[in-house]
Amino acid sequence: MTTEIFKNIGRIPFKGPDSDDPLAFRDYEPDRMVLGKRMEDHLRVAVCWWHTFCWPGVDMFGAGTFDRSWQAADTLENAELKLQAAFEFFEKLGVPYFCFHDADVAPLGETIAEGDANLARIEELMRAGIDRTGVKLLWGTANLFSHRRYMAGGATNPDPEVFAFAAAQVARVLEMTHRLGGENYVLWGGREGYDTLLNTDMKREMDQLGRFLSMVVEHKHRIGFTGTILIEPKPMEPTKHQYDHDAATVHAFLRKYGLEKEIRLNLEVNHATLAGHSFEHEVAYAIANDLMGSFDINRGDPQNGWDTDQFPNDDREAALALFHILSAGGLTSGGFNFDAKVRRQSIDAEDLFMAHIGGMDTLARGLLMAERMIGDGKLAGFVTERYAGWTQGLGADILAGRSSLSDLATLARDQGLKPQPRSGRQEYLENLVNRY
Amino acid sequence: MTTEIFKNIGRIPFKGPDSDDPLAFRDYEPDRMVLGKRMEDHLRVAVCWWHTFCWPGVDMFGAGTFDRSWQAADTLENAELKLQAAFEFFEKLGVPYFCFHDADVAPLGETIAEGDANLARIEELMRAGIDRTGVKLLWGTANLFSHRRYMAGGATNPDPEVFAFAAAQVARVLEMTHRLGGENYVLWGGREGYDTLLNTDMKREMDQLGRFLSMVVEHKHRIGFTGTILIEPKPMEPTKHQYDHDAATVHAFLRKYGLEKEIRLNLEVNHATLAGHSFEHEVAYAIANDLMGSFDINRGDPQNGWDTDQFPNDDREAALALFHILSAGGLTSGGFNFDAKVRRQSIDAEDLFMAHIGGMDTLARGLLMAERMIGDGKLAGFVTERYAGWTQGLGADILAGRSSLSDLATLARDQGLKPQPRSGRQEYLENLVNRY
Amino acid sequence: MTTEIFKNIGRIPFKGPDSDDPLAFRDYEPDRMVLGKRMEDHLRVAVCWWHTFCWPGVDMFGAGTFDRSWQAADTLENAELKLQAAFEFFEKLGVPYFCFHDADVAPLGETIAEGDANLARIEELMRAGIDRTGVKLLWGTANLFSHRRYMAGGATNPDPEVFAFAAAQVARVLEMTHRLGGENYVLWGGREGYDTLLNTDMKREMDQLGRFLSMVVEHKHRIGFTGTILIEPKPMEPTKHQYDHDAATVHAFLRKYGLEKEIRLNLEVNHATLAGHSFEHEVAYAIANDLMGSFDINRGDPQNGWDTDQFPNDDREAALALFHILSAGGLTSGGFNFDAKVRRQSIDAEDLFMAHIGGMDTLARGLLMAERMIGDGKLAGFVTERYAGWTQGLGADILAGRSSLSDLATLARDQGLKPQPRSGRQEYLENLVNRY
Amino acid sequence: MTTEIFKNIGRIPFKGPDSDDPLAFRDYEPDRMVLGKRMEDHLRVAVCWWHTFCWPGVDMFGAGTFDRSWQAADTLENAELKLQAAFEFFEKLGVPYFCFHDADVAPLGETIAEGDANLARIEELMRAGIDRTGVKLLWGTANLFSHRRYMAGGATNPDPEVFAFAAAQVARVLEMTHRLGGENYVLWGGREGYDTLLNTDMKREMDQLGRFLSMVVEHKHRIGFTGTILIEPKPMEPTKHQYDHDAATVHAFLRKYGLEKEIRLNLEVNHATLAGHSFEHEVAYAIANDLMGSFDINRGDPQNGWDTDQFPNDDREAALALFHILSAGGLTSGGFNFDAKVRRQSIDAEDLFMAHIGGMDTLARGLLMAERMIGDGKLAGFVTERYAGWTQGLGADILAGRSSLSDLATLARDQGLKPQPRSGRQEYLENLVNRY
Repeated sequence: MTTEIFKNIGRIPFKGPDSDDPLAFRDYEPDRMVLGKRMEDHLRVAVCWWHTFCWPGVDMFGAGTFDRSWQAADTLENAELKLQAAFEFFEKLGVPYFCFHDADVAPLGETIAEGDANLARIEELMRAGIDRTGVKLLWGTANLFSHRRYMAGGATNPDPEVFAFAAAQVARVLEMTHRLGGENYVLWGGREGYDTLLNTDMKREMDQLGRFLSMVVEHKHRIGFTGTILIEPKPMEPTKHQYDHDAATVHAFLRKYGLEKEIRLNLEVNHATLAGHSFEHEVAYAIANDLMGSFDINRGDPQNGWDTDQFPNDDREAALALFHILSAGGLTSGGFNFDAKVRRQSIDAEDLFMAHIGGMDTLARGLLMAERMIGDGKLAGFVTERYAGWTQGLGADILAGRSSLSDLATLARDQGLKPQPRSGRQEYLENLVNRY
Repeated sequence: MTTEIFKNIGRIPFKGPDSDDPLAFRDYEPDRMVLGKRMEDHLRVAVCWWHTFCWPGVDMFGAGTFDRSWQAADTLENAELKLQAAFEFFEKLGVPYFCFHDADVAPLGETIAEGDANLARIEELMRAGIDRTGVKLLWGTANLFSHRRYMAGGATNPDPEVFAFAAAQVARVLEMTHRLGGENYVLWGGREGYDTLLNTDMKREMDQLGRFLSMVVEHKHRIGFTGTILIEPKPMEPTKHQYDHDAATVHAFLRKYGLEKEIRLNLEVNHATLAGHSFEHEVAYAIANDLMGSFDINRGDPQNGWDTDQFPNDDREAALALFHILSAGGLTSGGFNFDAKVRRQSIDAEDLFMAHIGGMDTLARGLLMAERMIGDGKLAGFVTERYAGWTQGLGADILAGRSSLSDLATLARDQGLKPQPRSGRQEYLENLVNRY
Repeated sequence: MTTEIFKNIGRIPFKGPDSDDPLAFRDYEPDRMVLGKRMEDHLRVAVCWWHTFCWPGVDMFGAGTFDRSWQAADTLENAELKLQAAFEFFEKLGVPYFCFHDADVAPLGETIAEGDANLARIEELMRAGIDRTGVKLLWGTANLFSHRRYMAGGATNPDPEVFAFAAAQVARVLEMTHRLGGENYVLWGGREGYDTLLNTDMKREMDQLGRFLSMVVEHKHRIGFTGTILIEPKPMEPTKHQYDHDAATVHAFLRKYGLEKEIRLNLEVNHATLAGHSFEHEVAYAIANDLMGSFDINRGDPQNGWDTDQFPNDDREAALALFHILSAGGLTSGGFNFDAKVRRQSIDAEDLFMAHIGGMDTLARGLLMAERMIGDGKLAGFVTERYAGWTQGLGADILAGRSSLSDLATLARDQGLKPQPRSGRQEYLENLVNRY
Repeated sequence: MTTEIFKNIGRIPFKGPDSDDPLAFRDYEPDRMVLGKRMEDHLRVAVCWWHTFCWPGVDMFGAGTFDRSWQAADTLENAELKLQAAFEFFEKLGVPYFCFHDADVAPLGETIAEGDANLARIEELMRAGIDRTGVKLLWGTANLFSHRRYMAGGATNPDPEVFAFAAAQVARVLEMTHRLGGENYVLWGGREGYDTLLNTDMKREMDQLGRFLSMVVEHKHRIGFTGTILIEPKPMEPTKHQYDHDAATVHAFLRKYGLEKEIRLNLEVNHATLAGHSFEHEVAYAIANDLMGSFDINRGDPQNGWDTDQFPNDDREAALALFHILSAGGLTSGGFNFDAKVRRQSIDAEDLFMAHIGGMDTLARGLLMAERMIGDGKLAGFVTERYAGWTQGLGADILAGRSSLSDLATLARDQGLKPQPRSGRQEYLENLVNRY
């Protein structure tokens, strides 16, 4: 198990913006100080197990295209080889974090007991990998969507035994995450939704899901896990409709079940756009409602209506998201996880590296742009000035509840109010963003 | 004011399914008993003032195509003529309800005072029309989006004076609605959203909106209005993003500001589809979360990404919505309002009639289909049986909070649970729906 | 090989609209005469091999859910069992046609030679099945998209050897289709497109594709195949963009390469909607441009942006398509192929039957509605009357090329033309359609 | 008429990337040499009359928000004032070109004759403006979509008199464009499509349109106009479906009617994205099929499904388009026309300037990036190398028509071809683009 796997690739160096080495960073410089903190500590980049090590290049119309030795069969031996590849990759890339589903890292078998032994062995190796490399666990999660038992949902399944099975999986991975020092635990409800309303009792399923999440929160406290529980919204796919549609829908759900103080959001770019939102919108919504947790950073294809999970390459999108995040105090337990996969035609190991390098450089450029946005204060200043009327006088009275609808009606009528619009300056602000 | 306006068209009769008279109902039969209630009382159909009497056939690329005498200029005289046309139309069509915005029915001028006198005169005529015809007011609303003062929002405007102006408008129409016996009051926040996040403080704007709605609710109670306050979700247009995006987003908002017991939803079909949902989904969501209020019944074009507001013509869509609505007890204060406009090429008065007739016949067919769905019990029975496991034993224990995550993990592990999937029978159920 | 596979299901009977037997036809009655032809001969229904017998219920987020014995491994033995299941299914369902890809029916191996023997054995069995049951081959096709060699396209691959491999596959299946009496040969270019323009020479790839299609047409004539060569448009998926985007795009392509007399279209409902068109539009476009060939009849999900390939259940959509098709003379060599798959939760064999039954009943109802549309002549009559001005006088002169732009300018200027619009009567026509 | 209109704004200077003057160019430097040509001569920027001077800030839900003196009424006097404003704007901004519709520049009345006199007066003033400022006419066009006579189309109208009226308008503006030295003439068929297929004879309408375009081409040659005739594709809006859907659809149309040598494309970014394409795709398609003409440069909103016509601000999009355009030889008679409007909240005159400045800077940055892409040759080199197999040996034989399908089948079979895939390197290429 000590053979090098990515043989022709060494530790990826930072070479700066003038480099044309495709296997070097041009912008991602971990120790560079940005607004008083190291770049690495701002971005908290994570590599995900599933797309990077498990996905074989299959799509709905074609078989796998990659040639990764550990993908030949779902055995423990291959799982160990995959883990070796993963830690070698983390180290060579120089990332501080990784993420995984239980099903990514070990064969789970058909019963809980069958998975226990395999996971135990993998946990041991993962522990060793973490200790050896210093790469940490950003979050763990349980796969409640791939096995056929979950075809009609995990927590929202019509069969309570499936709920129980899901509970067992989550308890197991939550505990494993806790032992491994994971900083968050994520729930992605890939099948928590419906394929057709004709066979679905939505109210009942939402109650089941509410109960499930409450149990997860209770368990977290019971075992002393101090990380953050996160829900990842997605509007659809593989289901027709997923209950965790977008940030606002999850917000409603959390408030209905009294969980809004316990659970935060793991927002994904591609899921935002599939829901008809910009990523910036979802970030801003999460912040406005105290729900910001962590991020799956990738991108969709604006012309394709499914989850393409491409590596991010849009500086402005990254910069605007980071501007909001930094303005709200920056990441705490969350990070930027590359829930992204190389294209099916990118079959070489170096494609894996170049994809992550490109993504990390994009985040780095976004961070440096956000630093400038915050530094010169023009964007924030414009907004502050625009709403200045709400910090005093009439505006402050209204917000403080000192004016009734009648009071305002009287005011508007008696004073003959004729409020005049002021330019929103959208083009000016867009030009401003393009300067950074 | 006593001249007939729609001269060649009389009262629209019911002639039954074999009729080929385009100016007769084939399916809408007000007195037909359906599940113990008159069809008219189930459907509570309303005609809207704006599309039916105010819209001149303009679109973003072309001038008005219609030739309605009262649309020549925005004068009180024309407003009176329009009101005459409206009541003649209501009577000839035989609908029980109508709806309006303040700006639809009278010139509002530039100050609150300028609108007061015009609205007072119109209210007097509307009162007379209601008394004479028996047609009732389903809901009133204030237009907080057309005037340039509202270009950056009403309640969410950066200028508190605009908020005050909006408050005055809402207070005035809410009171007018109350005096006229209106059964609901609707808020549609056409500009409560943003064109760009670059100039927007989302948290502040949502707080403003929360305060505004709270004031409306307080005012309702103060004046003794017992109707329902409704919010109409729409994801976008005219704004890039509207805060009342969809049912779930409004749900989150209402819970955040403690309004979930006071305000319900006015759901529109075309707004649902623009938000990426089926109408059936929005209906089911509203019911599952005790938010069902009223409906704007129209349809969008599946190939066009804006609000086309076409008259409904899809029996199955109507039937599925009505199946959910009737299963939840049916409409109370709400109704089916045709927030729909004839196509720009449908320039004749009889097009207005035929459009409404077609819409009402569609609702009638949907109701009769829903009656059969409920009558034979197969759809509901299938769902009940599918979730039967949750009404007893393990399922009931889980829902009642008697099992912890650990308990279930132990159960799944120790009993070696291997839950087997059961067919969801989607195609069977779709075939079943096609029988009704 | 003589054991019955679908053991509890017999020949599906026609029981009429009042039946509630889910395993009986309610509307599909093969011998019923419609406009002078048997229903079966109008609809020419086909079952496809791939979705119905090969797809295991896998999706991008989950493993197979079905339990079909022949899917255990890609062996010739299983292929034979699958073929047995297929013919049993065809007979029990009572369909006149089937369709297949080479890769559906036999293991193809890694070289052309490896596939030859397996296909020869399968052809022998297929021949026997056809002879025994009378079920015929609507079309064959070669799978040029699933194997990793095709990841960058078949005909449009950067590697000419892949082109040659694709040519060999097509030649082989075209010849097999010819020997089996197939009535058409279809090309679906699932990978003939691009994932990114950054690595793509679009002009060169289109030239390659043009050359490929010309070779196929030449080969067809050389071997004496008198069936129709068809191209199936799809806008995207699995590629970002497919060159056969929609009917119009294929039309342009065929004209550019001089193939518009040789090749026709195989239109699919779900591909039409993914391209932003109604199916009716694609049908009307094909007819208006003499490109109508055959149909893959399914439906997409209006809220999902990928190919869901659901069974059709929309009567009106079927009726409007059939109205156009019958008005244009009806199907010739084409048919209605169910390129549709049961939902992943529909795991039982009877789901397969019920899905096809529902689809066939939908087509049957559509046909009967189209019969009435054509019978009463109102729709066609309205259109004829609307364009009457073009059949004589000014209109006829213009179309015949007897008027220049100057002539018309003079006419309009000198006669002071003020053409008046006439109502397009869209709502009337929609109501009319709802009567059938 | 000699009063300055934009009083506080002078000639917009170039101040370079370090400037933070919102009324200065940071990147657009007309005389800067790029690949041997002045930046201005590469980009050929045009300002459009309609959005910039005619649109009052109205949308489907609200009245105009702007306060432009010449928009008070549709009089000749105001048209003259508007023209004065336009030329002042062109000069201050420093653009070389402008574009207009007939209806933008003068009141057209109800008959051709009524418009003649007004247009003659405006032509005189426009001539003087051109002579005085040196700003030239990129293209003229006739508005065949706003007046109610065109509600059912211009050339595709069911009424031949409307066709004649449209012909008169086009003849008049084409001649005016010719006299004013316009370099192109554009046709945008905003109503050449359908609202419903139920009342539409698609084949007939396409024949009408084919005849119309042929007449325009004949007229162009008759009057000696040597500019280019352009068609602007758009998929929909205001119609449900427009016949000029996208580049490929227009391509099919032009080939069907034998016009592919006479007419080229005026591609718009927002129309591309509404059709489900990237702008880069439409550019590449036009180039691959010898149809590149001119560009309407703007952008849509990725979350909104209508034509938002925003000013461009995406450097990479501009760079990739320009990379293709320059690689194909650059613009000839075409240009980059800002078919873009400031947001409805951007009510000040300086918003108009800042919007255009931002757009021109974006184009300039895109040009400079494209210069670097072309300069280092890496992108083009990668593509050339990828397809190298097609320039010799087997590939060359295939393209030259020297191999039949049988030849290739024999080759693949006998040589046991097992072509191996090569990485498409998408992520590497995306990273590369991000370097420029």
